[in-house]
Amino acid sequence: MAIILDGKTTAASLNDATKIQADKLTAQGIQPGIAVILVGEDPASQIYTRNKHRKAEKLGMKSVLIELPETVSQDEVINEVEKLNQDQSIHAILVQSPLPDHIDATTVTNSILPSKDVDGFNPTNLGKLYGRQPGNYPVACTPKGIMTLLKQYDITLAGKNVVVIGRSVLVGRPVAALMINQNATVTLAGRFTQNLKALAKTADILVVATGTPALISGQDIKPGATVIDVGINRGADGKLTGDVDFETASQVAGAITPVPGGVGPMTIATLMQQTVELTQWSLNNGK
Amino acid sequence: MAIILDGKTTAASLNDATKIQADKLTAQGIQPGIAVILVGEDPASQIYTRNKHRKAEKLGMKSVLIELPETVSQDEVINEVEKLNQDQSIHAILVQSPLPDHIDATTVTNSILPSKDVDGFNPTNLGKLYGRQPGNYPVACTPKGIMTLLKQYDITLAGKNVVVIGRSVLVGRPVAALMINQNATVTLAGRFTQNLKALAKTADILVVATGTPALISGQDIKPGATVIDVGINRGADGKLTGDVDFETASQVAGAITPVPGGVGPMTIATLMQQTVELTQWSLNNGK
Repeated sequence: MAIILDGKTTAASLNDATKIQADKLTAQGIQPGIAVILVGEDPASQIYTRNKHRKAEKLGMKSVLIELPETVSQDEVINEVEKLNQDQSIHAILVQSPLPDHIDATTVTNSILPSKDVDGFNPTNLGKLYGRQPGNYPVACTPKGIMTLLKQYDITLAGKNVVVIGRSVLVGRPVAALMINQNATVTLAGRFTQNLKALAKTADILVVATGTPALISGQDIKPGATVIDVGINRGADGKLTGDVDFETASQVAGAITPVPGGVGPMTIATLMQQTVELTQWSLNNGK
Repeated sequence: MAIILDGKTTAASLNDATKIQADKLTAQGIQPGIAVILVGEDPASQIYTRNKHRKAEKLGMKSVLIELPETVSQDEVINEVEKLNQDQSIHAILVQSPLPDHIDATTVTNSILPSKDVDGFNPTNLGKLYGRQPGNYPVACTPKGIMTLLKQYDITLAGKNVVVIGRSVLVGRPVAALMINQNATVTLAGRFTQNLKALAKTADILVVATGTPALISGQDIKPGATVIDVGINRGADGKLTGDVDFETASQVAGAITPVPGGVGPMTIATLMQQTVELTQWSLNNGK
């Protein structure tokens, strides 16, 4: 039976550390501030954004939740972003996805100041990551949270064979970049990949981020491998499951993240951590 | 015997097309302009930059070669870049590497306006590429030239297994990104990779960009694979060789680039092509 990579406990411990840092900054007169923009009334998005909003408040940060109607124009959203770019009390800005069809997510993302881009989606930040540039810059929260979780369990990357299934800008691409930068040999696979399951079985570390329930099961996993399941799928019974069949996979893997309680809690804890880091970095830049 | 991917002929044809485009722009009153900054007196760099300078002139562009002494400060180099950023007659700027140790290449690269960054090294451009953003932006010339060469020979990427050996910002990382974006399954390998040669042998398309002469030979290549050799190494006898042992590799591969005459000519032809493209894109942006 695999070691369970406990995201819930690791996230709680990260949140404790984040609160200490946030309080320290507040005592210095610089309370970390995060702003979340939500467009429309998608129920899942409402839950996510309100969770982020409440968590930030709980950790002692300034938290602003801006809810815009479904009918808002792209220019109006960008106008809100611009105001937050200028606002000295806000260090982190995120726009909850998905956005309505009449709004181009890339244009909105690109309008966030790179130094406040807490999701790490701005091309300047993604390019610094992929180009392995030195210095401080935000990185997408789910991938960064995965790295924290691996570190917590002393799972190293150098020389390991990593297979990442799913090539999204939110998860697959940045997690591949982070692992390349830690000297892993990384294969980025997707729906066009031939013999996907045979490829998965070559991985020392397998990251699955596709949104396809139970895409990977025990027989597709190298014995002893580390399995990171980024999927969050809600079954007909209302239960959450990942992209990996936990029951069979946990018999073969050496370590595995559960769903829920694995990567999920790390994402929001990393969002909080990175809000504090952006605040610290803004001070170092003399802003 | 493998098909030889003839970079020399392909580059000549690309140059012809570039000259037509350049002349057309000049006739419209917008002569494409490129500026190359060379710091110090490294003989190889002098040859490279002068070749670029002469090629640009030959293709009907405005070409400016700025030679700065080895002792120039980083601020002075950035000051030259800033002047070129402002210069309406210059559409493409490149700083020849390597730079002297007292100058930080990343800081200098980042100072080039993304819209004039003909080498595609600016993190904003690399991030757009890795994030698969739509729209026009420059891409590193060697990787872009490799894609042109593959296209010339009708070698497609979708669903292929690609192994890229070498993780540089100049070649390995951007070529991996370009191929990921064309739906290949891409593995990025480096010196930390275990069983590198066995991995190489899984590739339908193998890109070798390490600077290690004859790292890969025929026995490391899957029969029928396409082999792209980015290495340019000068032997004790003064002869140029690649990172692939051409004699044995060409017996096994389905298609292969020679050294010299493969990737090398594509790089400079792509630099010229991209200078014209940057000029066109600057018009479309209304600048």
